[in-house]
Amino acid sequence: MSPKKIAAEKAVECIQTGMTIGLGTGSTVYWAIHKIAQRIHEGLMIRAVATSNGSEQLAQQLGIPIVPFSEIGQIDLTIDGADEVDAHFDLIKGGGGALLREKIIAANSKQFIVIIDESKQVDKLGRFPLPVEVVPFAAELTIRQIRDLGCTPKIRTTDGQTYKSDNGNLIIDCDFGEITQPASLTARLNSIPGVVDNGLFVQMASCLVVGYKDGTVKLEYMGVN
Amino acid sequence: MSPKKIAAEKAVECIQTGMTIGLGTGSTVYWAIHKIAQRIHEGLMIRAVATSNGSEQLAQQLGIPIVPFSEIGQIDLTIDGADEVDAHFDLIKGGGGALLREKIIAANSKQFIVIIDESKQVDKLGRFPLPVEVVPFAAELTIRQIRDLGCTPKIRTTDGQTYKSDNGNLIIDCDFGEITQPASLTARLNSIPGVVDNGLFVQMASCLVVGYKDGTVKLEYMGVN
Repeated sequence: MSPKKIAAEKAVECIQTGMTIGLGTGSTVYWAIHKIAQRIHEGLMIRAVATSNGSEQLAQQLGIPIVPFSEIGQIDLTIDGADEVDAHFDLIKGGGGALLREKIIAANSKQFIVIIDESKQVDKLGRFPLPVEVVPFAAELTIRQIRDLGCTPKIRTTDGQTYKSDNGNLIIDCDFGEITQPASLTARLNSIPGVVDNGLFVQMASCLVVGYKDGTVKLEYMGVN
Repeated sequence: MSPKKIAAEKAVECIQTGMTIGLGTGSTVYWAIHKIAQRIHEGLMIRAVATSNGSEQLAQQLGIPIVPFSEIGQIDLTIDGADEVDAHFDLIKGGGGALLREKIIAANSKQFIVIIDESKQVDKLGRFPLPVEVVPFAAELTIRQIRDLGCTPKIRTTDGQTYKSDNGNLIIDCDFGEITQPASLTARLNSIPGVVDNGLFVQMASCLVVGYKDGTVKLEYMGVN
């Protein structure tokens, strides 16, 4: 079994009947959605919200009940992947461009379980360029302010066209080198007018599940070693 | 002459040939744009960027050269109005719904001159509800997080329809009562995923011009009494 699938299926064991579940996006979450569907066919009763149209469609095809945000209170448990995770469970997300929706869901979840294969673990964040979501209006000015924080910013393109997020914004991939102060960096980025949000998820993950190539899996809770 | 017009025309005296000017939005800025056009016909040479389509069209009709953001470096001087101004020159803006564009322009200006009539001066901010711009995705969850900061939030509507900003977002008018710590409140609001920005402009104004009913005008620079 692949390390991603191992991690995903371990995380799904945490889901209990009665819960409202947040479904992330990506190749690791794909396995989690399949496992949740299997558990539903075995009798699990939950309802879910999704961070992307792709995850929502997959979930509905597999028989997972998706509800509108107006019908839920807090989300009990969200499962999502990450592009990088450091030893403090701080993350970089947004390689897929859905960072804002993923962050909104994570911020409204009692438990946020991050599922990764071992290749995503790093000592310090920053090997992966940090995605920053920016409104198109006067983006030249906003990007200059981001650069002044000490990075090399690059406007994300796809097939030669400027990439637009689900929210109609630009994604700027920012190479800051090693990120030693993620909490401070995320606050400084989000204080720039025109920055909608950024891919740093600081002190948001409550649980990390890592799948290894040798077939093992490790589940760690934040603050527990 | 109306207090708004007096304040606007006083501010325009600060503009010098060679400058790149940011044009705000609203009934006070209307007079500033007319005065700038008059000065251009008298020989002033400037170029300008605008915070709204309305101001851009008015400026172009009057012969003020508007340039794209890609052609400018920093903005030398921006003139804009406000809904409320306190004794520290901190502002609430966004009654017109253009708070984000106005904040981007102000944040990229060497000088930011705020023009108001005397009715906009307050001891403490908060008589005017604070506009907060929120992405539509999962807005129910984001609004709940805003409410948890201690306000009564109300989704802005116009003609019975949900109002959308120029950027396609919702505006939530938030009654916080008296705002005693604007810097802290703006940081906390902007750290909520789903909040794009808010109408507090803290330590951004470099100069305040107030027009009075008695026909007088007062120009004050930040940090100078």
